[in-house]
Amino acid sequence: MITTAIIGASGYSGAELIRLLSGRDDVHVEKVIAHSSAGKPVSELYPAFNGRVKLAFELFDPVIGQQVDVAFVALPSGEAMKVVSQLHGTQARIIDLSGDFRLPSITKYEQYYKHTHSAPELLNDAVYGLPELNEGLISIAKLVANPGCYPTGAILPLIPALKNRLVFPDRLIINSLSGISGAGRSSSVEMSFSELNENVRAYKIGVHQHIPEIENVLSGVAEDEVRVSFIPHLVPLTRGIYTTIHAELTERVTKETVIESYVEFYKNSHFVRIRKEIPQIKDVLYTNYCDIFVAVEERTNQLVLISVIDNLVKGAAGQAIQNMNIMYGFPQSKGL
Amino acid sequence: MITTAIIGASGYSGAELIRLLSGRDDVHVEKVIAHSSAGKPVSELYPAFNGRVKLAFELFDPVIGQQVDVAFVALPSGEAMKVVSQLHGTQARIIDLSGDFRLPSITKYEQYYKHTHSAPELLNDAVYGLPELNEGLISIAKLVANPGCYPTGAILPLIPALKNRLVFPDRLIINSLSGISGAGRSSSVEMSFSELNENVRAYKIGVHQHIPEIENVLSGVAEDEVRVSFIPHLVPLTRGIYTTIHAELTERVTKETVIESYVEFYKNSHFVRIRKEIPQIKDVLYTNYCDIFVAVEERTNQLVLISVIDNLVKGAAGQAIQNMNIMYGFPQSKGL
Amino acid sequence: MITTAIIGASGYSGAELIRLLSGRDDVHVEKVIAHSSAGKPVSELYPAFNGRVKLAFELFDPVIGQQVDVAFVALPSGEAMKVVSQLHGTQARIIDLSGDFRLPSITKYEQYYKHTHSAPELLNDAVYGLPELNEGLISIAKLVANPGCYPTGAILPLIPALKNRLVFPDRLIINSLSGISGAGRSSSVEMSFSELNENVRAYKIGVHQHIPEIENVLSGVAEDEVRVSFIPHLVPLTRGIYTTIHAELTERVTKETVIESYVEFYKNSHFVRIRKEIPQIKDVLYTNYCDIFVAVEERTNQLVLISVIDNLVKGAAGQAIQNMNIMYGFPQSKGL
Amino acid sequence: MITTAIIGASGYSGAELIRLLSGRDDVHVEKVIAHSSAGKPVSELYPAFNGRVKLAFELFDPVIGQQVDVAFVALPSGEAMKVVSQLHGTQARIIDLSGDFRLPSITKYEQYYKHTHSAPELLNDAVYGLPELNEGLISIAKLVANPGCYPTGAILPLIPALKNRLVFPDRLIINSLSGISGAGRSSSVEMSFSELNENVRAYKIGVHQHIPEIENVLSGVAEDEVRVSFIPHLVPLTRGIYTTIHAELTERVTKETVIESYVEFYKNSHFVRIRKEIPQIKDVLYTNYCDIFVAVEERTNQLVLISVIDNLVKGAAGQAIQNMNIMYGFPQSKGL
Repeated sequence: MITTAIIGASGYSGAELIRLLSGRDDVHVEKVIAHSSAGKPVSELYPAFNGRVKLAFELFDPVIGQQVDVAFVALPSGEAMKVVSQLHGTQARIIDLSGDFRLPSITKYEQYYKHTHSAPELLNDAVYGLPELNEGLISIAKLVANPGCYPTGAILPLIPALKNRLVFPDRLIINSLSGISGAGRSSSVEMSFSELNENVRAYKIGVHQHIPEIENVLSGVAEDEVRVSFIPHLVPLTRGIYTTIHAELTERVTKETVIESYVEFYKNSHFVRIRKEIPQIKDVLYTNYCDIFVAVEERTNQLVLISVIDNLVKGAAGQAIQNMNIMYGFPQSKGL
Repeated sequence: MITTAIIGASGYSGAELIRLLSGRDDVHVEKVIAHSSAGKPVSELYPAFNGRVKLAFELFDPVIGQQVDVAFVALPSGEAMKVVSQLHGTQARIIDLSGDFRLPSITKYEQYYKHTHSAPELLNDAVYGLPELNEGLISIAKLVANPGCYPTGAILPLIPALKNRLVFPDRLIINSLSGISGAGRSSSVEMSFSELNENVRAYKIGVHQHIPEIENVLSGVAEDEVRVSFIPHLVPLTRGIYTTIHAELTERVTKETVIESYVEFYKNSHFVRIRKEIPQIKDVLYTNYCDIFVAVEERTNQLVLISVIDNLVKGAAGQAIQNMNIMYGFPQSKGL
Repeated sequence: MITTAIIGASGYSGAELIRLLSGRDDVHVEKVIAHSSAGKPVSELYPAFNGRVKLAFELFDPVIGQQVDVAFVALPSGEAMKVVSQLHGTQARIIDLSGDFRLPSITKYEQYYKHTHSAPELLNDAVYGLPELNEGLISIAKLVANPGCYPTGAILPLIPALKNRLVFPDRLIINSLSGISGAGRSSSVEMSFSELNENVRAYKIGVHQHIPEIENVLSGVAEDEVRVSFIPHLVPLTRGIYTTIHAELTERVTKETVIESYVEFYKNSHFVRIRKEIPQIKDVLYTNYCDIFVAVEERTNQLVLISVIDNLVKGAAGQAIQNMNIMYGFPQSKGL
Repeated sequence: MITTAIIGASGYSGAELIRLLSGRDDVHVEKVIAHSSAGKPVSELYPAFNGRVKLAFELFDPVIGQQVDVAFVALPSGEAMKVVSQLHGTQARIIDLSGDFRLPSITKYEQYYKHTHSAPELLNDAVYGLPELNEGLISIAKLVANPGCYPTGAILPLIPALKNRLVFPDRLIINSLSGISGAGRSSSVEMSFSELNENVRAYKIGVHQHIPEIENVLSGVAEDEVRVSFIPHLVPLTRGIYTTIHAELTERVTKETVIESYVEFYKNSHFVRIRKEIPQIKDVLYTNYCDIFVAVEERTNQLVLISVIDNLVKGAAGQAIQNMNIMYGFPQSKGL
């Protein structure tokens, strides 16, 4: 029995971790930590858990590091690093869902996240937790930096094209459409129903904190400097990310050749499905799948890639559990 | 040219007043007051007004009462009465969209609104601004208490049945389904998109502040004590209220007879349409209409009434303008 | 290993059965029958099943009755009875999700369903599959008539009140708000996104086919004639039914007494949760729970009951599986 | 008084024309033509018009060409040309909202629209009805080809950049997100609420019929061959199109310079607003505005352009009325 704690359990990713883990008999959630809700039963904040989850939220105590095997940290960036610092070096292996340990460069971190990094000494120990890329490192990691939701949807479809040098790495155009739960459990006029319903808006053009994450990971894949123009959009649905990518082809290829290379590349990746038809968000809702579609536009010499994920599953809690499965030698798909 | 000010202009009802009034050439909006946004152009908060509305929000100054013909007060209940007190007795005729002057009983007000009433001396001067009921009084009023959104949708379909003593007044069952804009421009987790989308919930059962308003107005109509069980529900759309009412019939009647009496009662009411088919919210969106449908269920001896309104138009700003039209002798439908 | 077939597998209830059953290792779906899609892989119609479900749709062949243990019939009313007739008497135990075998009265059936009943001789063998009411009979049934979605949401909250004679049975007011998937996988202008989004509408007032189902089952519970005024409404969400019920109290009771009797009545019913706060649809989405809330309105002498279910789970496929679990001696909640 | 007929009046664009024109006292809608609804009052199909529009749908009769000043044709592509052929040469000036007369090349038309063109002889007479581009020609045209919804949202933001040779014309990346009403009043499973709600999907990649329209118009503007990769997406809202464009800059420019050139270019275009903040669909809903936002991404050398329109107004009926205003010497914004 693997014992776990979820720190920052009152947000949507935390709740999704509870939902997914509470169905397993080989993993036990010992503690759920949420400062602002400490003392309240989980089922008070999330009535869906009535009769299913008996836990109550608690305050954080670093002794947790001695009590559980895995600590999932689902706190906002900036807060997560404080908790990770306190847990690092204890018996607990850490899966951090924040952005705090995803970037090797402190400069970039501070530029995009707009606050200082208080635990730079841990960056070297962190493994970027994209299972399709880093399975070996994840399996032995003490600290996993779970990927962001947008990066998961953007990186997975681009890996094979960049590895195979099918496209120029310095002019990738990424348009992502996200459900609103990606913004977290938030209280602001901007995130209210009346403002977002029957509406679409782009935001953080050129300054989104996921830009350096995408570029850093893909530069490693391409062994070359990758530059992306990434435009995130909010669309009126709760869950899911739709990503449409344009990349200029380096040479003439057929759609069939590209698809073949994608199928080959992901043949052992349970959660990546190369699709023949254009995918829809509902194809992956409440699952850990990332569905990928490939098109070649000869007229404009573009490779068009589309991916869909559930931002709370493959884009957060599901991927975290996939990482835990790898760390403990379970099949990646266990409980997902 | 009628000159007007909108006090509390940054909320949804205020913005709707701006939208509706800015299209008229016989009415001029002189000032828009919004404490928290003072100094900002209206078009910064509501970019839809770019190029159409040049006004900027200002702080409230009681001298407004000497500067305009009509003051629309679109502040929350509790705040509205403070402003109304300062404007009362000036040249400005006041149309108050809050609940502060709708109830003749201070006791009921304080019981349901949960705060004290600071201007009880003005209650006698206030006219309940339901044009279909009080046209004469409205035409000469200095202070109009514009009806609530739920009460508008509940009262209009019940008036003819109660006037004609078709139903028992003490056991009216009212279920209303409201779009989210009814809750105002609010920043809370409860009103966020992710909480309300793909969801329905009832709220404030038995304690909603519109209960005494509905009962008071309908008791006057029925010349008897009216009691309602009113259950408001939030449904995932921005605008509109759907109200379904059950009332026990006092005697056997046919649907045809009832419809006839409704058509007769509302024959001179431009904005009430007695419908032959079951109405939908989209039949009235962005209009000042209240559509009413009547059914007689012999098996259970119930009169079933359905109404639909746009909560921001007939349920707020549109009705306020309808009242202004009456006050100045315009056709009720002018600019609506 | 229990072997099963799903007949009418291309609709939403059929797909939900596939989803729920495909996760079990003690139940095997042998065949999925869908006339109009015969030959196509399930994953072509429902791409979410890519990589998870290998089955292809087939034409119906009565020999299925000799090949499987359980036949789920998820066809429209009128078509279901033809298939049930052919399967009846074979080894297969039948769980029929249509309305064809829910009403003991052929007259009522033909009045409300508007077509003749071709298999009246089977009506006596059918057990109404509401597990909370008929567990014993279901466990030995050869033919289970799985309840309708609206009836499930209306009957469960009313049973304890009627059993305990808390309310008058002949004037029950039921308002239900349903997600659109309740209308099935349909191609009509009325069910198109542009018509239903940002809209609410009641429909089939007084003539909905679930009225006699609700009245018949509740009359049995009350040992008295039950009459309901049932108003179904479509609200713009995909899944879920919100039901608000008014029932006149026979005597003064406190909310506490009523809640106690509800808790007591449902103490062994895993899937019924008596809630202290007003429930929301999202509390039960993708689960087989029915959450019930009780309020007593002294002013109007009404018992107010609210229930929420997921129409495709507790209102259809989940309840069917709960019935199968009972038939085979599994815990009711297995796989749900 | 200008007299008009609307042919194909039962679809969403037709209904929007009725809505917009019925508010004018200088234009009269004489006839509304809709084959499938002939004989029915408009208010039966669109109950919102109850009490406001007295017209009934009629069958088409070519004599209309002698009876009205303007014929709006809002039929599907393929059907429109048959009606236009019969009206051409009569007194009526024609504004055709279909795609039938937008492309000068029959070859391209037949390639993308998948049917033959039966009236190629009229193509020379047709003026592309984008007022911001062709005001002079529109003012004297007998046949106006009203632009498509996607082309309107894509062309307007690209004109100044191409005119000023700021970007390479042969690699324009256009991602558009459309509300569902763009698909028309349709009865198909694909367009049903349950399929589109909580979902996003791209469609017709590389084969959408608006591709040659965009390329043809912009090639004229650029005086060079324009090639676009255009990816349309359906997002779950009823109205509005959000268009995000990437174009590679030909040289280093600042955002300020580009914005200045946009402001200058559109200084006399009432309905184009160059915005300083990222626009949202709700900024233009129910209006004829096209809001445009400009960003320069130095890192990737891209000009990023965003536009928002209401697909039924600036993308269809509103633009048609803007064209009519130009044809009759009214201010472009009259009645809009």
